[in-house]
Amino acid sequence: MYRTQTCGELRIKNVGQTVTLSGWVQKSRDLGGMTFIDLRDRYGITQLAFNEVDNAALTAQARKLGREFVIQITGEVIERASKNKNIPTGEIEIKVTEINLLNASKTPPFTIEDETDGGDELRMQYRYLDLRRNPVLQKLQLRNKVALETRKYLDTQGFMDVETPFLIKSTPEGARDFVVPSRMHEGQFYALPQSPQTFKQLLMVSGIDRYYQITKCFRDEDLRADRQPEFTQIDCEMSFVEQEDVLQMFEGMIKHLFKTVRGVDFEGDFPRMTYAQAMEKYGSDKPDIRFGMEFVDLKQVTSNKGFAIFDSAEAVIGINAEDCSEYTRKQLDALTDWVKRPQIGAKGLVYIKYNTDGTLKSSVDKFYSQEDLAEWAKLANAKPGDLLLVLSGDLDKVRKQMNELRLHMGNELGLRNPNVFKPLWVLDFPLLEWDEDAQRFFAMHHPFTSPKTEDFHLISTDPGKIRANAYDLAMNGVELGGGSIRIHDRELQAQMFDLLGFTPKDAQNQFGFLMNAFEYGAPPHGGLAFGLDRLVATMGGSDSIRDYIAFPKNNAGRDVMIDAPSPLNAVQLKELGIAVKS
Amino acid sequence: MYRTQTCGELRIKNVGQTVTLSGWVQKSRDLGGMTFIDLRDRYGITQLAFNEVDNAALTAQARKLGREFVIQITGEVIERASKNKNIPTGEIEIKVTEINLLNASKTPPFTIEDETDGGDELRMQYRYLDLRRNPVLQKLQLRNKVALETRKYLDTQGFMDVETPFLIKSTPEGARDFVVPSRMHEGQFYALPQSPQTFKQLLMVSGIDRYYQITKCFRDEDLRADRQPEFTQIDCEMSFVEQEDVLQMFEGMIKHLFKTVRGVDFEGDFPRMTYAQAMEKYGSDKPDIRFGMEFVDLKQVTSNKGFAIFDSAEAVIGINAEDCSEYTRKQLDALTDWVKRPQIGAKGLVYIKYNTDGTLKSSVDKFYSQEDLAEWAKLANAKPGDLLLVLSGDLDKVRKQMNELRLHMGNELGLRNPNVFKPLWVLDFPLLEWDEDAQRFFAMHHPFTSPKTEDFHLISTDPGKIRANAYDLAMNGVELGGGSIRIHDRELQAQMFDLLGFTPKDAQNQFGFLMNAFEYGAPPHGGLAFGLDRLVATMGGSDSIRDYIAFPKNNAGRDVMIDAPSPLNAVQLKELGIAVKS
Repeated sequence: MYRTQTCGELRIKNVGQTVTLSGWVQKSRDLGGMTFIDLRDRYGITQLAFNEVDNAALTAQARKLGREFVIQITGEVIERASKNKNIPTGEIEIKVTEINLLNASKTPPFTIEDETDGGDELRMQYRYLDLRRNPVLQKLQLRNKVALETRKYLDTQGFMDVETPFLIKSTPEGARDFVVPSRMHEGQFYALPQSPQTFKQLLMVSGIDRYYQITKCFRDEDLRADRQPEFTQIDCEMSFVEQEDVLQMFEGMIKHLFKTVRGVDFEGDFPRMTYAQAMEKYGSDKPDIRFGMEFVDLKQVTSNKGFAIFDSAEAVIGINAEDCSEYTRKQLDALTDWVKRPQIGAKGLVYIKYNTDGTLKSSVDKFYSQEDLAEWAKLANAKPGDLLLVLSGDLDKVRKQMNELRLHMGNELGLRNPNVFKPLWVLDFPLLEWDEDAQRFFAMHHPFTSPKTEDFHLISTDPGKIRANAYDLAMNGVELGGGSIRIHDRELQAQMFDLLGFTPKDAQNQFGFLMNAFEYGAPPHGGLAFGLDRLVATMGGSDSIRDYIAFPKNNAGRDVMIDAPSPLNAVQLKELGIAVKS
Repeated sequence: MYRTQTCGELRIKNVGQTVTLSGWVQKSRDLGGMTFIDLRDRYGITQLAFNEVDNAALTAQARKLGREFVIQITGEVIERASKNKNIPTGEIEIKVTEINLLNASKTPPFTIEDETDGGDELRMQYRYLDLRRNPVLQKLQLRNKVALETRKYLDTQGFMDVETPFLIKSTPEGARDFVVPSRMHEGQFYALPQSPQTFKQLLMVSGIDRYYQITKCFRDEDLRADRQPEFTQIDCEMSFVEQEDVLQMFEGMIKHLFKTVRGVDFEGDFPRMTYAQAMEKYGSDKPDIRFGMEFVDLKQVTSNKGFAIFDSAEAVIGINAEDCSEYTRKQLDALTDWVKRPQIGAKGLVYIKYNTDGTLKSSVDKFYSQEDLAEWAKLANAKPGDLLLVLSGDLDKVRKQMNELRLHMGNELGLRNPNVFKPLWVLDFPLLEWDEDAQRFFAMHHPFTSPKTEDFHLISTDPGKIRANAYDLAMNGVELGGGSIRIHDRELQAQMFDLLGFTPKDAQNQFGFLMNAFEYGAPPHGGLAFGLDRLVATMGGSDSIRDYIAFPKNNAGRDVMIDAPSPLNAVQLKELGIAVKS
């Protein structure tokens, strides 16, 4: 037996016991005749004590142990002379009688401490050492707990975990598929699922009216920061439900998770907002409502005063940054530079300082009177001491830019506390999105989303205006999940594919199995999927998902630890019947 | 709201309530003025009643509903005149006041009943309809329960669920990989994992001393019956453990699963047997010990009596089929034909009838006396009324053939009751297997398995004799899972790769990340993986895993429902930088 206890277990009540522990040497200290070693495992740290007077040979052996050596020791639990109140085992130490070196270690390429000196690339290359660090380990523990509590909740609600296949069929609609050449069927390919969408709908046709799965999904996209080619989804679907049933069920799940995993109680129902409202007030379909600073439409009151930029703009939108009227020239210039960066793309920034003395001072004083500015301030609910920031231009662009500026100001002003959680249901998403490049509509969610009955008459006149029975759950400016009520009627599904530019033959070829299934008694159904990586990161108070994944890929989609992807050998290529273009 | 209850919920206590149900029309019966419909969902069946006298229009509407139509009804729960004791809802029916047709259905291609008229291919093509059948649904429910109870048990034992990546690196050792071309790194490929083996070992290096995952694995093998290219593994690993710790932990898990899911208690510890013993007594490393019929070595007693076939055979092995001495000529000929089939490959079958009158009659009476035969019978513990069956030839071949014959006889004699469960640990597997074609050793388990210390001296003299710290759990003639204590020392791992014919460069290139990790304080570790598909099938009393998978592939690796794999379009191939050979 390698150990009788873990390194996080022993307390003052164990004094006098003989124990065996195994773990890693976190650090050692020589103090005159005494040597102390911190022995670490996943559960904690226990101090080992060696006294040169008692046992010179053993102490000499202990002194040779380097950082990250793996050892097994036996000894007696004794009370510490100087106690450490910061760790649970801090009242005791082990008077060691025997050391067994289990494995030596080279000096790690970075220090295995909460704060490390290792850069990102190095930590990823030696991810197995990075995972020894407490902050990283805790993130994986959080993930483990969230996943299990998700399962427990859904099981209690009668959901069945059903595994759907990974080797499926490529459907070029939507994002790019990762594909898998078939050796047995030369020239043919499987695809890895972007989501289990069609399979979970087939399960609804099967009558499995409550399905869930926590599963990997794959998208071959050009990676942006914090996107992963493989990611994990909590995928759910229900039959005989309306939108409200789905929202209630998964609001319950999120509440359960925050309660059991983080000890956070949400009071009352999650707030709701339509997509149209969210875009109008926040310029985002996943607004961070931990703080206000809502958009104010200033188009009307700023027009026809001789300021050509506002006059010609489709939209003039302001936000009120409270208590910021004392911003210096330098700070305001920095903000202007920030919105003019290519990532944001604004042409400029107008500001109005509502000074504490009640006067107003703006960057457009040439065109607007104190009364004009006072009217703006009133619309924005600004008070003396506040700062109005105004952007103008095409509506969609200004909304995007102002959303970024608002979040930036939220960060600057410390209004985005990672330990405050503000969920928000965003409802009534548009069914379609117009793509200028392709000159056609794409499904905003996916082609299986059902349109709102009351909007469906717009199909021949103004399809872009059709709203869908689609919903997202946003939290703290992040989309945790989203879903919709699906189409369950073959005819409607065929119309939808037609709208998306599919020929009937293409639609049948790619999604015939689903449309055929709809002819055999498909029930009304709908569902939702959460991004587990993002959910866990948000619960952990982090913006970045990468640390919540045990073995993530870098921004180029590479695993730098195992060095993948990599070339295949000629035999493998030949067996697969494919050639790499040179 | 689509329903107030499910179709399995209503009882006599609900009489008088107005309810709304949704479900599928299982069948309808017109009896004079009355029409009855069985409404089905996942939870059960509820009878709907329509009386022509009460409501002629509604009854007419009901009569038009075909099988598998999806309807929503509202009505009053009433007590049935003639109760059906066979179903939980059999005491009541619904006096329907309103029907809402949710979706019509074409006539299904096979009947949706427990016993269906649909053939395998048809059922797979319409798998979403097949899954509506109770026996199939129950198999998925069993799987769901086994998976969740596995998680609960492992969580209680401190195991962490950690997701390992799917897009990894191809390692041509072992079975063939499925590969995934990288678009962003042209000419390079990811591979899908055959198991998370190396990653779970890295997690041990990380200090996550108890890891588990229920995850898909992929092997591009030429499919035999009941093999799937993607399959699910309960994958586990532990640090600071010896073999005994691993066996105890997972024996506990299997006991927990059988107890909670099937209500089966195992008394005492699971029996254990070495690989050598299993091969000697059963000719199999996964013997079915629900019945005896153990191998008897007859080489010694059959030699030098003038029967050239036995004399020249390396092995002569018998089994005793109890109470079969009355087998007819026809039955014995059938058995002989059975062992001579190419799948078994025996040259012939010798039998000895131990007649109830105490005489012995064999197919080799020409060479052997009654005393000779009596001696064989004694060795085989045969009694009057039994039948000895004997095969001869090369040891390995005879063992394989006799194993097949023994299982065949077990089936014939009804000795393999699917509701009796007999687990068996098989220990001390050989480390290596000699491959005649490749003229080299392969790892019997995988290259990370540790040799037994006491055998390791054989490495330069007789490596084929080295036993490994490797173990399997067999049950009812099936391998449920297997594992080993791993190598955690870089030098030993390098020696192992050398033994397997890797150059140091190849070893470093393919497994360098793991060998490097071993240099930074790798703890002693070991683990085990269960095949979830097979575990669930065994618990369900079935030999075939396919029905326990929601969407299985056929023996050619095809999903006939969605028609995968299938050709890619030219744009996709071009983007991936690969060409299909023509």
